Amino acid sequence: MFDFRRSHDCGALKKEDIGQSVTLSGWVHRRRDHGGVIFIDLRDRFGLTQLVIDPHTGEKLYAMANQLRQEWVISVKGKVIARQEGMSNPKMKTGDIEIDVNDLDILSKSKVPPFTIADENLNVNDELRLKYRYLDMRRGPILDNLILRHKTMMCVRKFMDNNQFVEVTTPLLGKSTPEGSRDYLVPSRIHPGHFYALPQSPQLFKQILMVGGLDRYFQIAPCLRDEDLRADRQPEFSQIDMEMSFATKEELFKLVEGLMHSIFKECRGLEIQTPFRHITHHDCLENYGTDKPDLRFGMSLKTIDDIAKHSTGTLFIEAIESGNTVKGFCVKGGADLSRKTLEDYVAFVNLLGVKGVAWMKRQGNELTTGVAKFFPVEQQAQLIERFDMQEGDLLLIVADEKSLTNKALDHLRRRIAKERNLIKPDHFEFLWVTEFPLFNWNAEEQRIESEHHPFTSPLFEDIHLLKTDPLKVRSLSYDLVLNGYELASGSQRIHNGDLQQTIFEQLKLTADEINQRFGFFIEALSYGTPPHLGAALGFDRIIMLLIGTDNIREVIAFPKTQKATDLMMEAPSDIPEKQLKELKLRILS
Amino acid sequence: MFDFRRSHDCGALKKEDIGQSVTLSGWVHRRRDHGGVIFIDLRDRFGLTQLVIDPHTGEKLYAMANQLRQEWVISVKGKVIARQEGMSNPKMKTGDIEIDVNDLDILSKSKVPPFTIADENLNVNDELRLKYRYLDMRRGPILDNLILRHKTMMCVRKFMDNNQFVEVTTPLLGKSTPEGSRDYLVPSRIHPGHFYALPQSPQLFKQILMVGGLDRYFQIAPCLRDEDLRADRQPEFSQIDMEMSFATKEELFKLVEGLMHSIFKECRGLEIQTPFRHITHHDCLENYGTDKPDLRFGMSLKTIDDIAKHSTGTLFIEAIESGNTVKGFCVKGGADLSRKTLEDYVAFVNLLGVKGVAWMKRQGNELTTGVAKFFPVEQQAQLIERFDMQEGDLLLIVADEKSLTNKALDHLRRRIAKERNLIKPDHFEFLWVTEFPLFNWNAEEQRIESEHHPFTSPLFEDIHLLKTDPLKVRSLSYDLVLNGYELASGSQRIHNGDLQQTIFEQLKLTADEINQRFGFFIEALSYGTPPHLGAALGFDRIIMLLIGTDNIREVIAFPKTQKATDLMMEAPSDIPEKQLKELKLRILS
Repeated sequence: MFDFRRSHDCGALKKEDIGQSVTLSGWVHRRRDHGGVIFIDLRDRFGLTQLVIDPHTGEKLYAMANQLRQEWVISVKGKVIARQEGMSNPKMKTGDIEIDVNDLDILSKSKVPPFTIADENLNVNDELRLKYRYLDMRRGPILDNLILRHKTMMCVRKFMDNNQFVEVTTPLLGKSTPEGSRDYLVPSRIHPGHFYALPQSPQLFKQILMVGGLDRYFQIAPCLRDEDLRADRQPEFSQIDMEMSFATKEELFKLVEGLMHSIFKECRGLEIQTPFRHITHHDCLENYGTDKPDLRFGMSLKTIDDIAKHSTGTLFIEAIESGNTVKGFCVKGGADLSRKTLEDYVAFVNLLGVKGVAWMKRQGNELTTGVAKFFPVEQQAQLIERFDMQEGDLLLIVADEKSLTNKALDHLRRRIAKERNLIKPDHFEFLWVTEFPLFNWNAEEQRIESEHHPFTSPLFEDIHLLKTDPLKVRSLSYDLVLNGYELASGSQRIHNGDLQQTIFEQLKLTADEINQRFGFFIEALSYGTPPHLGAALGFDRIIMLLIGTDNIREVIAFPKTQKATDLMMEAPSDIPEKQLKELKLRILS
Repeated sequence: MFDFRRSHDCGALKKEDIGQSVTLSGWVHRRRDHGGVIFIDLRDRFGLTQLVIDPHTGEKLYAMANQLRQEWVISVKGKVIARQEGMSNPKMKTGDIEIDVNDLDILSKSKVPPFTIADENLNVNDELRLKYRYLDMRRGPILDNLILRHKTMMCVRKFMDNNQFVEVTTPLLGKSTPEGSRDYLVPSRIHPGHFYALPQSPQLFKQILMVGGLDRYFQIAPCLRDEDLRADRQPEFSQIDMEMSFATKEELFKLVEGLMHSIFKECRGLEIQTPFRHITHHDCLENYGTDKPDLRFGMSLKTIDDIAKHSTGTLFIEAIESGNTVKGFCVKGGADLSRKTLEDYVAFVNLLGVKGVAWMKRQGNELTTGVAKFFPVEQQAQLIERFDMQEGDLLLIVADEKSLTNKALDHLRRRIAKERNLIKPDHFEFLWVTEFPLFNWNAEEQRIESEHHPFTSPLFEDIHLLKTDPLKVRSLSYDLVLNGYELASGSQRIHNGDLQQTIFEQLKLTADEINQRFGFFIEALSYGTPPHLGAALGFDRIIMLLIGTDNIREVIAFPKTQKATDLMMEAPSDIPEKQLKELKLRILS
């Protein structure tokens, strides 16, 4: 048998190795014939090495080399030699050398692949890439992403371990406690008619570990949600899950900031600024119209009800009188935007549910064009001051219902930042958003529901409002936002069974429901629960941001489609009747 | 609000800290009153610290301290003082000091727990411990085990990373490819009537990663099997899963040996011997009667057909003539075993399916008692030589069908080792068992089935027997055995689609079945698959052996019962009709 063990990988050999006898194994990346001499680029995870097979070396060897096709797996023995004068390739790690092959073995052949791995400008459709994921991997970027992902996992674990956190593997087969998203269910064979639920997150387990005295827990935890998928969601995802006892949110912030600093430093070589900025949920909506603002550019929002009510624009005045708002932002140098572009913006915000967007430009000491004529000189001066408008700046204004106005301005702000190239690459702006409302109103079901989850502690100073004015209650919660993405979410937990019970009651859960779903948990809280808090960080999203992609499928080894299908292995699939019978289930048609 | 942030944990304070003002938080472990002074042992994950509350310090403080009950969570401020002369406790990390408390806050109260955490000799039944897992954790050993488990995971990852392995998270929602054990299934809502399967192991994914060129993969992988459980099994378990390309089994052995060496060194401070011993499956059965022998003691088995056929015992002669075997082992100094014990052994092996066990003792130069009279002098001398019997040694012999004889002698050998205290603590004997048969015979279904799994490569020199004499074919497989436990199992994989197809045909899978279950995998193998091999190590079992327990529930945070039930959260449970409807399923009654 041919000994296929490598002496080196395909990215290792350099000038210094010239003269050595080596064994390399890998895939035939490219094959070229030059005047009878065969050149092969041999590929593995580590790089490419050029092989040379000269017809003079031997008839059998040459005939074999002639047979080779793309993606065949071969092993070769030969001597490292210098490339000919002028033929070096400084872009390749091994660009100074080539291998003068004197022995070759074909380890396995390949059918003609559905796309060419070596073609760098290949435009393959997503479905074909997913079906042949293993071939797509060979093209490079996916493997690089998986290696970065591994490196980041190592970094996270080292950091958490250094901070006395213990990684605990929590169960996959748990109890269904529907709240928030839909559970994936697993029928039990031993207990027919009963089901396990796969974890949406290890929330209850990690809190119970605090009750158990573990003190500091973390896990890079697999989580599953049976939701209708969006582009940046997968039915399975990973989160860096953490929980700590006897600590405050300032300690948790410092920990997470240190963790992010380590990740960016070790995995991307970037130095990020800590501590991160803070803003309350209320101020965040006011300034950016969203709870996950992108801070890589300015254009923060300002309300101008107080100015607009002195305008002569009936639209503005009516808006204010009916309880709506007038709000806007300034685009630096935006006076260069054409009327056509501005009218595009109107159509754009219409789709987001508001009636339109108005504009004014600063020329000298006054505002002109658009709705400027409705603002007297004094109000124009106030607007110029409020938005710090310079010559050539543009002001954009929406007058509509508050939350719609916020939404429209947020989208418009981000669109303009992209169009005007205001975003520098490798620019990362972190932000803690704090004091989210504890509840929000589910209009459809006519009941309040938890903004985060029902284990979140109210702000201590708002507890007295719980029963009288629950929608006013703020929570001891915090999100970490990066460049417009929610990266983490966490809170102080309720460590008191009575308070937990009150929250459940506010959520209109009946005593029976509470008991059936969370009875064990309330019981656990009653045996001496330490104050504890924690957070969950979207791990896949962190990798996306590190890499600079907005496609989550690029950072997961075997992703699913938006229909939750694995195109490679064709899952989900039908199963033999026998298995259904064992589970005592029947499929309804 | 009382500031409950700790200045120190409960295991930190030493003589050197005397005079410091500190804040400690934790659980009331024990409370004692001595002449009006209240002593409290405050507990957290890190240790115990003694608190002293003197009535003179303040009425309110003293009244509060008087109220405290076991397992209440408190926070205290005070001064570190030396314990009184003669009151030091050298067994406690903080045994030299105590805290003179000057402020106290009750963070949360506790109901009277169903068992006393502080009671070291407590005998609690397993079900109560599982229901109140969080209280059981506070008792110590479980948390210690979880921390050791975390440490071992860190050690594994560091070692694999240093060896260029990449940890890849493979999907939980995969395709059902029934082979071996029963899958847990997950009904799909988006594709009604279709099911995902939870992974029994990431076998196909890791091989596909090799096809994709990842070269070296590992994962501490969650695996699930819906089997009827034994004491050392759980429906969910973890394995250290690994796969490498272009390598040989010698390289894999070296890697795994290095890994085990690191684990034992870093997590237990023990130096284990490498390289490990090797034995073929055939020789292993011959010498120990099992494929997972315990080598911490001698008493290896020897076949004595050639000697017994010259005996005058019709039982032995008939056994040999009917194709059975005569086999036994020697117990050093076993002549001291009473007739009653020996008769117990007969009853013991009867339960294992053999007719009995015979014995002889060496006295001077001859064998006496039991069946000695059936062996002429010459045969006695041969037996003495073969088993290296000394004065006072005992020979035990079984004459029966081969596999039953092996089973009986294996069990008897292990029983005697335990009874005679032949096993030293912290003694670890590793063994590689190689060349398992590729197939075995499933008498019930009248077909051959894979001994490991259908992706295992035959020994190259046995490939010609595949179609003519498949049960004779040995495989390129290996198990790692430690102290009688199978710790790891691995093999060279088939990297050739045609050979893989032949194996499936031998397993009597129809073309349709092959295509439906493994079509995607055979397709993947056809695009240039590198030679690859790998192994899976039972992670929970490694922790069990490190700790020295034989109860797997001691090394898992939230284990299930033998009925696959979570007693704490009461899972599995019934689910609302609405969820079943969404899945288009009905429960059969």
